[in-house]
Amino acid sequence: MTATDKPGIDLGIIGFGKIARDQHRAALDASPVFRLAATVDPVNRAEGVEAFADLDSFLRQMPQVQAVALCTPPQVRFAVARQALLAGKHVLLEKPPGTTVSEVMTLERIACDQGRVLFTAWHSQFAPGIPGAKAWLADKRITGLTVTWREDVRRWHPGQDWIFAPGGTGVFDPGINAYSILTHILPVALYTTQAELEFPENRDTPIAARLKMLSEEGAPVDLDFDFRETGVQTWDMRIETDRGVLELSQGGATVIIDGQAIASESSLSGEYDRIYARFAQLIQRGESDVDLAPFRHVADAMMLGRRIQTAGFAW
Amino acid sequence: MTATDKPGIDLGIIGFGKIARDQHRAALDASPVFRLAATVDPVNRAEGVEAFADLDSFLRQMPQVQAVALCTPPQVRFAVARQALLAGKHVLLEKPPGTTVSEVMTLERIACDQGRVLFTAWHSQFAPGIPGAKAWLADKRITGLTVTWREDVRRWHPGQDWIFAPGGTGVFDPGINAYSILTHILPVALYTTQAELEFPENRDTPIAARLKMLSEEGAPVDLDFDFRETGVQTWDMRIETDRGVLELSQGGATVIIDGQAIASESSLSGEYDRIYARFAQLIQRGESDVDLAPFRHVADAMMLGRRIQTAGFAW
Repeated sequence: MTATDKPGIDLGIIGFGKIARDQHRAALDASPVFRLAATVDPVNRAEGVEAFADLDSFLRQMPQVQAVALCTPPQVRFAVARQALLAGKHVLLEKPPGTTVSEVMTLERIACDQGRVLFTAWHSQFAPGIPGAKAWLADKRITGLTVTWREDVRRWHPGQDWIFAPGGTGVFDPGINAYSILTHILPVALYTTQAELEFPENRDTPIAARLKMLSEEGAPVDLDFDFRETGVQTWDMRIETDRGVLELSQGGATVIIDGQAIASESSLSGEYDRIYARFAQLIQRGESDVDLAPFRHVADAMMLGRRIQTAGFAW
Repeated sequence: MTATDKPGIDLGIIGFGKIARDQHRAALDASPVFRLAATVDPVNRAEGVEAFADLDSFLRQMPQVQAVALCTPPQVRFAVARQALLAGKHVLLEKPPGTTVSEVMTLERIACDQGRVLFTAWHSQFAPGIPGAKAWLADKRITGLTVTWREDVRRWHPGQDWIFAPGGTGVFDPGINAYSILTHILPVALYTTQAELEFPENRDTPIAARLKMLSEEGAPVDLDFDFRETGVQTWDMRIETDRGVLELSQGGATVIIDGQAIASESSLSGEYDRIYARFAQLIQRGESDVDLAPFRHVADAMMLGRRIQTAGFAW
């Protein structure tokens, strides 16, 4: 089925960078509902799809497009999302949804006023092992938790200077995926009690963070986020409960409970298919889904954290 | 009327430091509803009032006390507030209400589960000029705004090291008073777009901050927070609208609209009387009042801000 003969919802991708090319494009091609109608990006474009260099031209020339996915760096997200909502589009926000919690709350209100859907898409919440993990944890008491999220920024974000610019959140860009899993699957709230943030001397966001949180009932939570891991790439959690241990790895592709695998996918490739299925469902119901809990944990850690200066970073 | 023969609600102050002695004590003595029944503090005590060195003893020995005011440094606020709520007390939180937004949201849920009142008291919202300012602004369009909040930390927080420790928020401790006024009186939401944070090389929180915000409609907002002001102490705002200018000074004691004073108190001394009147009203109605908008702006600024190292600070 080609873009032009597929029935459903026309969608534009705004910001056709790495995540849009690596994930959104394929998910839209496979979607039974959405049709990629245009890209908006000053540099990049998708072959065979209408391309616009700026938002104004896109909004003016393709008024029939009903929805947009925002895949720009977070620093420009608010202004673009606001303009799209005011132009009557449903809006999907890639993670993180902006640069401040307050601006996303403002978008939520604008979406509500406009009768349009706003969806903060946290892709890790759509990883293969997540529904099973959430269901198993629902009636357990958490007694301890460790999170190890270590990756090589040069490999996963090559040359993406925005990540180290104010508002880019540095190592919390992957770390927020861990938060988005925790806030989604745990039956209790967590809050940060201590954070050590390593800032490269020539950058404005942390390259590593060691954090302590507590569950509401006092269970200890240790988190290790690091952007300098050139060895084994690790996105793991170990959740101890009163009745067994849950081990999540590869960002949620694999989940093992007391030694038994309940999910063991080799990759996370279905995440974006499920994101677009959820977006379609939200549009059909006329409901927004604005989940700010993961982003609030980043803001809390940055407010509470002790800053440590470390070696300068260069690509 | 003495503490013992006044009818009404028995209240304990937890953390009998500077703000408790300077403000809460007198407001409680003057309150027609509350009776100061105890203080809980390892060092300080109020003459003629039961004194406890620790929370456990207080909760065990004075179970009849219905409400507590938490005036400890924010770093221990959550654990104390949780314990007090679980013991069935109504809880007033001095500002800032904690060290993270997430922990205060957890307290809100505990208060709800327990059927007890939680009140985040932002004293500047109770300044004399605030109701008039809010009423006048309600139907105006904001076109520009400047905030100048400059004070001498050595004068107002002598020796209070907690303010420069992680979770103490530094210059945002007074700055949050400005945020609490803005979020209360303005008819539009603001969000932070830029922040420069000056961290003393030997401290963990900023001593000065220059911030830019925008109103949802794009009006520019400039904020200047500084803890190093040894000259004139300034807590001023200038709010330009489509129909006139509002000038607020002395933290809300004075408000002038187009050159005409609508409030011109010489001090802010009524703030805490009104805070306790509000707390009494909330308890009577069984309603919580948890306003997180001011605190969220601090977290946002700390997440988004560019850090600049500046000279070390000593008392």
